[in-house]
Amino acid sequence: MTKIIVSYCLKPQVTKEEYEKYFRKEKYSLVTSFPSVKSFELNKVVNVMEGEKTADYMGILEIESLEAYQKDRETEKFLAR
Amino acid sequence: MTKIIVSYCLKPQVTKEEYEKYFRKEKYSLVTSFPSVKSFELNKVVNVMEGEKTADYMGILEIESLEAYQKDRETEKFLAR
Repeated sequence: MTKIIVSYCLKPQVTKEEYEKYFRKEKYSLVTSFPSVKSFELNKVVNVMEGEKTADYMGILEIESLEAYQKDRETEKFLAR
Repeated sequence: MTKIIVSYCLKPQVTKEEYEKYFRKEKYSLVTSFPSVKSFELNKVVNVMEGEKTADYMGILEIESLEAYQKDRETEKFLAR
């Protein structure tokens, strides 16, 4: 199994509410529409146990393979042109 | 559900084989013996899509609550004294 772990840092002008709404309404359905993506979850960072906070959210994607995922992303970019 | 996402950077003198052996033989069974821990997985970092590589492994723990987990860790420290 391959996972992608992504750190998301919000831009100062974006609130958590706005980001979560965008995630629910757009990002989640787009990403999970990729055939290579088995699951996608967004975790809110509420606590940092060591070091400095470097992310507002951590995304975890389970994917079939990196090659398949990158191909899906390329297709998406192409279709959105 | 609460998750802990941990970055592990190996010391230069430790090989991946040694770390994985230690993880399998000691760390995994210790951590999953904590009542607060539902699951613990170790992911090897094989690719960095953006930025620099900052970890050799990423651990993902599913825990009941941070409070319960910290209590389990304190108990472990006490018992190991």
